[in-house]
Amino acid sequence: MLPLDCRLVADLRIGVIGGGQLARMMQEAALPLGLQLRLLAEGPQTSAALAVPHAAVGDFADADAVTAFARDVDVLTFDHEHVPTGLLHALQDAGVAVRPGPDALVHAQDKAVMRRAMAELDAPNPRWRVVADADALVAFGEETGWPVIAKTSRGGYDGKGVWRIDGPDAAATPFAALAGPQGPTEAQREADAGVVILAEEFIDFARELSVLVARRPGGEAVVYPVSETVQRDGICHETTTPAPGLPPQRAAELQRLALRIAEALGVVGILAVELMERRDGTVVVNELAMRPHNTGHWSIEGAVTSQFENHLRAVADLPLGSPAPVAPVVVMSNVLGGTNDDLLGTLPAVLADPGTRVHLYGKAVKPGRKVGHVTVCGDDVATTRDAARAASALLEGASDG
Amino acid sequence: MLPLDCRLVADLRIGVIGGGQLARMMQEAALPLGLQLRLLAEGPQTSAALAVPHAAVGDFADADAVTAFARDVDVLTFDHEHVPTGLLHALQDAGVAVRPGPDALVHAQDKAVMRRAMAELDAPNPRWRVVADADALVAFGEETGWPVIAKTSRGGYDGKGVWRIDGPDAAATPFAALAGPQGPTEAQREADAGVVILAEEFIDFARELSVLVARRPGGEAVVYPVSETVQRDGICHETTTPAPGLPPQRAAELQRLALRIAEALGVVGILAVELMERRDGTVVVNELAMRPHNTGHWSIEGAVTSQFENHLRAVADLPLGSPAPVAPVVVMSNVLGGTNDDLLGTLPAVLADPGTRVHLYGKAVKPGRKVGHVTVCGDDVATTRDAARAASALLEGASDG
Repeated sequence: MLPLDCRLVADLRIGVIGGGQLARMMQEAALPLGLQLRLLAEGPQTSAALAVPHAAVGDFADADAVTAFARDVDVLTFDHEHVPTGLLHALQDAGVAVRPGPDALVHAQDKAVMRRAMAELDAPNPRWRVVADADALVAFGEETGWPVIAKTSRGGYDGKGVWRIDGPDAAATPFAALAGPQGPTEAQREADAGVVILAEEFIDFARELSVLVARRPGGEAVVYPVSETVQRDGICHETTTPAPGLPPQRAAELQRLALRIAEALGVVGILAVELMERRDGTVVVNELAMRPHNTGHWSIEGAVTSQFENHLRAVADLPLGSPAPVAPVVVMSNVLGGTNDDLLGTLPAVLADPGTRVHLYGKAVKPGRKVGHVTVCGDDVATTRDAARAASALLEGASDG
Repeated sequence: MLPLDCRLVADLRIGVIGGGQLARMMQEAALPLGLQLRLLAEGPQTSAALAVPHAAVGDFADADAVTAFARDVDVLTFDHEHVPTGLLHALQDAGVAVRPGPDALVHAQDKAVMRRAMAELDAPNPRWRVVADADALVAFGEETGWPVIAKTSRGGYDGKGVWRIDGPDAAATPFAALAGPQGPTEAQREADAGVVILAEEFIDFARELSVLVARRPGGEAVVYPVSETVQRDGICHETTTPAPGLPPQRAAELQRLALRIAEALGVVGILAVELMERRDGTVVVNELAMRPHNTGHWSIEGAVTSQFENHLRAVADLPLGSPAPVAPVVVMSNVLGGTNDDLLGTLPAVLADPGTRVHLYGKAVKPGRKVGHVTVCGDDVATTRDAARAASALLEGASDG
């Protein structure tokens, strides 16, 4: 026991719901600041549970488990957006500091709510409509032209719960899925009640962009440079920061848009605004996330202050650190589970490039699962991308051919 | 439990003996690489024990405790150099990968052994002699001129076990201390047997410098830029990297010297070579350390690869990362326990400068104790130092006056 006249600095307890790699990387940012992370993880062997001494196991949708967890922390934040909004409201009403709060977070949880908010903010939306059945979806497609995108309003992630509907014949598909099994637990299935299908105009985008904001409760906010992001099968695959070829004035406009959304929605912590850029340079908002985001992993080495540290600073109501980049170009490449199941055995080959920064999440390799990422800071896009791609290919087990 | 067809990458277990802030910062470096740190800490509330899920408590000088700990790790390394050399030899003989090995580490444990090795290497020593008693110390002082420095060959750290002897009258002091109580436990006292007094010429140095090398078992090594270090009362207080005003050719010579020492002694992991620079620019070796070192903390933000990560890479026999600096000047300022016992409460003021990087060790504040450090990367020495000093002064609780 410590003497009574001593005081630990680790006495601000930040509770994180969810034990994935985002929580793990929050722990990497919490340790230097002397902040104590506590975890409510899905299991004892999740990515973050292997890294955080204070890790409890419990279902994020179980009101009893979450309420008990919240009792022993000073502020509650998230590794994912799946905690039921109603539960978060109840916690907030009981005096728990929930950051981001449920009124903000619902815009990352429910795409229909998000679309309505973007419309009210005059932020760029695709044409969209909540559709009650296949007929309504067909009507939307006939109006806007095929294909259209259909999405579940809640519960989708990494490409799940999203369909490209090429014509009337496929219009029943999303509603069939909606009627099928939802979340893996009873509590999650209850939370999924109220899910609707959202129809959106198909945007034949030239590329995707992402802008990250960190915002404190009082409104102080910083914005990161705009990243170009490449998705494959709905999963973030690569980011390049700053987005190549984006005129500075356009970048500044997008940064202002992200700041405006963060302010209007009252976000606390990281807000990621995912955008689709058309060939003419105009954009539409694709999705919002309110937690550290895959498109911001580059900031760990590439910015003065990482998104993980600024998320923690924001939720702990501490001044935010500089989001300025530290290199002319930063490329992040995700490592997905592939043919190589011995990531550690591949480290010698990957680390042979002394400028390659490797992040492994301590997760078992399964096909397509995010198991790590690599980051390279450089002076030009082409060579920096080559280095990052080579490293992630090695870790994934790509053949030499 | 994980399915059998899955494999965790965290299956290289690095055992660290000692649970101080160096082990804590190793954990910060281990997590991104997916390496699993296991700790043998002095207590459950030490800096690193608060940060590492796999933390055992035990006495680092207790053969049974250390041997049991070593059984469950793949490689053994250190937060400090106090593990008895004989115990490390026994572990190595039993097949444990001890890195650095005892034959190297003894040069960081025993200053008399180190002086002999530097002499054999033709590395710059001050004049020195092992002195058996006060009369021998007086004779050394009469030959070299007063004052002289007297040191215990083993067990000293942070200014403890070092005396400036101004003349014959004070020559008995170090021998009296040698006869007094030594380490806090029986095992440590046994380990202290064989301690002798080393007399060294007093070097009226202009400044102190430090050079860090990371070296793998096979000999691959990288060297960091030379740092200027400022000590107060024997404790590292501030470093500036690269050392201001050091001609590039001199810096390169010192880097070659450090690499030569690392190679000759067979160091694995980080070697810190502390140097005293005379007014004419010549240097003498002051001390060696074989673990991440306070004079290398700047590298966490200031270099492509931190000393902590390169220490782990070296002991895990992975390729080393680039030690190249990422800014023109990097200043690290230690935070010592002062009048402020609420470090967290001071964070808002300190973090108000968005470029200040804060590291708190989770330790209770006691006067003079190392409880954290701050790092600022900048473009010129004066403003960067000012920012770092202002931040550490705030954390220490310096008055405004």
